[in-house]
Amino acid sequence: MDDAGERDRTAVREANDRFYRAFESLDLAEMDQIWAHGDEVACVHPGWNRLHGWEEVRRSWAAIFQSTSEMRFTITDVRAEVRGDLAWVHCTENIISETRGRLSITAILATNVFERHPGGWRVVHHHASHILAPRDPEPEAA
Amino acid sequence: MDDAGERDRTAVREANDRFYRAFESLDLAEMDQIWAHGDEVACVHPGWNRLHGWEEVRRSWAAIFQSTSEMRFTITDVRAEVRGDLAWVHCTENIISETRGRLSITAILATNVFERHPGGWRVVHHHASHILAPRDPEPEAA
Repeated sequence: MDDAGERDRTAVREANDRFYRAFESLDLAEMDQIWAHGDEVACVHPGWNRLHGWEEVRRSWAAIFQSTSEMRFTITDVRAEVRGDLAWVHCTENIISETRGRLSITAILATNVFERHPGGWRVVHHHASHILAPRDPEPEAA
Repeated sequence: MDDAGERDRTAVREANDRFYRAFESLDLAEMDQIWAHGDEVACVHPGWNRLHGWEEVRRSWAAIFQSTSEMRFTITDVRAEVRGDLAWVHCTENIISETRGRLSITAILATNVFERHPGGWRVVHHHASHILAPRDPEPEAA
């Protein structure tokens, strides 16, 4: 990969980090800065149905932030690929959270799609899900 | 969107359809045709851990096809967005399947990333997950 490609990839990884810092901040204004604001935006929170368009996605963050007193991520297994003005990232979100006084640690798999905007890379798609079975080609036989 | 953009979007939706027809075929040779074959490939089957690289992803399809006698999809809520040579699609997979004599119907949320190759659009990333909670901003309070 050439230097420009490597720079793009680094910029996307930084945007991915900013997304999780914004999440930890529990501050909707931070999320406003990192997401695109169009109809093309979609989001799947772990176990939820898919949300479409920034308005609906933004409301979901407002609800999550309202019910969460603290959220800390350690992001591992990050891979970022860039093609022109679009990039996809996948990573594992290792989450320590306290919701209504209950502490929990969870590993979540995330796919994040970023688009290059004039001000930097913006999230256009977030899909996060739980691991329900051990890594095995035939989970039901495990 | 201009004509070229609309044509691209249609081509990506067709590639998405081909992916599910290949899945239904339970034929690994069909999957070989629709996926990219590089290290950038990754796949999350519902509830599984993430698989990396075409070799590992291909083995998972082999295992799934081996243990599945029939699989039928109805794909709904399809949205496709194209930027240059990269595209992301999200959709709902309504699955009727028979595994070891047991029939089941399941709705799965999928995010599929496609890259434009000389022979057409190829899958580089598939992330599929179950809906575990009703659509609600605070699932735990539902």
